[in-house]
Amino acid sequence: MMILITYDVSTETSAGRKRLRRVAKVCLNYGQRVQKSVFECQVNTMEMARLKEQLLQEIDESEDSLRIYRIIEPIEKNREQFGNNRAIDFEGALIV
Amino acid sequence: MMILITYDVSTETSAGRKRLRRVAKVCLNYGQRVQKSVFECQVNTMEMARLKEQLLQEIDESEDSLRIYRIIEPIEKNREQFGNNRAIDFEGALIV
Repeated sequence: MMILITYDVSTETSAGRKRLRRVAKVCLNYGQRVQKSVFECQVNTMEMARLKEQLLQEIDESEDSLRIYRIIEPIEKNREQFGNNRAIDFEGALIV
Repeated sequence: MMILITYDVSTETSAGRKRLRRVAKVCLNYGQRVQKSVFECQVNTMEMARLKEQLLQEIDESEDSLRIYRIIEPIEKNREQFGNNRAIDFEGALIV
């Protein structure tokens, strides 16, 4: 199944910034980063369960927001993208 | 149809912060803000066209990223949310 992961992790504290990096790292194991806090992932039922488990270990449920949506497939017909969607290295300097 | 709007608008400049507010304002006319840059909207085909047109007038396509996804309905069965998902006033102070 095709899923979209979106999250809001507060970056006001160093603990928050660390969580943000770890959440992104987990998501990168399952799919593609398409925006700063948005990932597209193709997963089966087992991978979905493991992904959720790993993400819940990283977020602070009292602070952070995590949402997972199932996208209608094929995603190419159910997703529109506008603007600057080139792959950006979200950690490092912007490479142009 | 149920759609998810996600966007990345650079907040490094005042022009970017202004675009961010205006994009959010447009989205608020069509649905519910669920994360800082994520909206859930129930729209028909005509509303979808108008929404896209309005959003494209607000973003800077060379800088910003805008993505629109169709979510499998009913959304309640195809969305999972974890953590802090209470309605947050994203513009003003955090009201606790």
